[in-house]
Amino acid sequence: MNILAIDTAGKTAAVAVMRDDTLLYEMASNTGLTHSETLLPMVDTALKACGLTPAQLDLYAVTNGPGSFTGLRIGLAAVKGLAFAANTPCAGVSTMAALAYGVCGEGTVIGAQDARRGQVYWAGFDLATHARLTPDAAEPVTALETFVKECRKPLIFVGDGAALCYNTYKDQPGILPCPQPLRVLRGAGVALAGKAMWDAGTCVFPAELLPDYHRLSQAERERAEREAAQQSATN
Amino acid sequence: MNILAIDTAGKTAAVAVMRDDTLLYEMASNTGLTHSETLLPMVDTALKACGLTPAQLDLYAVTNGPGSFTGLRIGLAAVKGLAFAANTPCAGVSTMAALAYGVCGEGTVIGAQDARRGQVYWAGFDLATHARLTPDAAEPVTALETFVKECRKPLIFVGDGAALCYNTYKDQPGILPCPQPLRVLRGAGVALAGKAMWDAGTCVFPAELLPDYHRLSQAERERAEREAAQQSATN
Repeated sequence: MNILAIDTAGKTAAVAVMRDDTLLYEMASNTGLTHSETLLPMVDTALKACGLTPAQLDLYAVTNGPGSFTGLRIGLAAVKGLAFAANTPCAGVSTMAALAYGVCGEGTVIGAQDARRGQVYWAGFDLATHARLTPDAAEPVTALETFVKECRKPLIFVGDGAALCYNTYKDQPGILPCPQPLRVLRGAGVALAGKAMWDAGTCVFPAELLPDYHRLSQAERERAEREAAQQSATN
Repeated sequence: MNILAIDTAGKTAAVAVMRDDTLLYEMASNTGLTHSETLLPMVDTALKACGLTPAQLDLYAVTNGPGSFTGLRIGLAAVKGLAFAANTPCAGVSTMAALAYGVCGEGTVIGAQDARRGQVYWAGFDLATHARLTPDAAEPVTALETFVKECRKPLIFVGDGAALCYNTYKDQPGILPCPQPLRVLRGAGVALAGKAMWDAGTCVFPAELLPDYHRLSQAERERAEREAAQQSATN
């Protein structure tokens, strides 16, 4: 089975092609260009390198959140467009699960993406089994303290929010270093997490593929604040 | 400082661009195409994506062995050609060190590339510090037994020879799984190992960049066998 994996949930963009359990091609871009510029040329390069067309793909795996609202829409729109023609199944992969599936070893991994305003999207996973330990959450980086302190195994942080976490918790016992190049969300992680969803029977058709934003957009938040202010002014 | 990292030592090809300690772009190809077909288009794609030309590179990092003789020659010839114009410094990175620098965590990592005839090129490293534990060696996979048995920490195998190692040692205590997509030699690992050589002052100019084959080529081996046979027939 041929799997195309895509991530545009954070600062970086990633594409991978996996055949059954074997990685054929992988790319990650952290150039500061917008995902709308980089994603489709990356997909084109990866598929051509593997001698594949979209018609030969059996599964699309894409990070569907949490993450950048615009980033998620770019990745999901691209996958929906590509998958719609043949109604190819899609795996909507948690961004945090994709981060965790991109690393292995013994201990615990926290996938953390920068959610701005001092917050991170984060979740904890077992590093060896990739079993989920906490649900995806959008919280201030200080809210991870209980999990970090109670974690009895060696702990690494990955994702574009890992630097925030390392800055906050680097002096805690059991925190292991992970250099920036190894923290980048990998297409291989999206592909492996998507394959696990396929094996678990939790994939969907492209029309049912939806983002999981996890919090209100800036526009929605500001409207709610405006309305609350008007409400209290009227009372 | 802009670093271009290249690997063509084994079955896969990898390219990465790293600026100081930050990964800008990474690609890995495992498509069965020859490295002479894939390498330069990958380099071109990666540099263009980063808006860089060879003139803007400060360091080339390339796996210089052990590994496939033809593969090593393709990677080294490409780097020598690119680096020669401006006499840009080059890091000749051990293939095994590049594998080790591509993973992090706690425990031990063995970088193992398939050397054919039941042999692997291999070396052991500490997973957290990437400190080398054994020299690069070309040996039958059974020769790793003492190291594997005496290793007191969790152990993972990476590289295109990892499957051979897992098949041989999977029932030993302390062996951790590592799915195939995470075993592939990463451009990020070449870049990190090359940066460590830069920091240690062990880089060279392109004219001094040499392969480290670690054993005789098939042609040299067969000639030696023929000459030995003639010798014993004459005596």
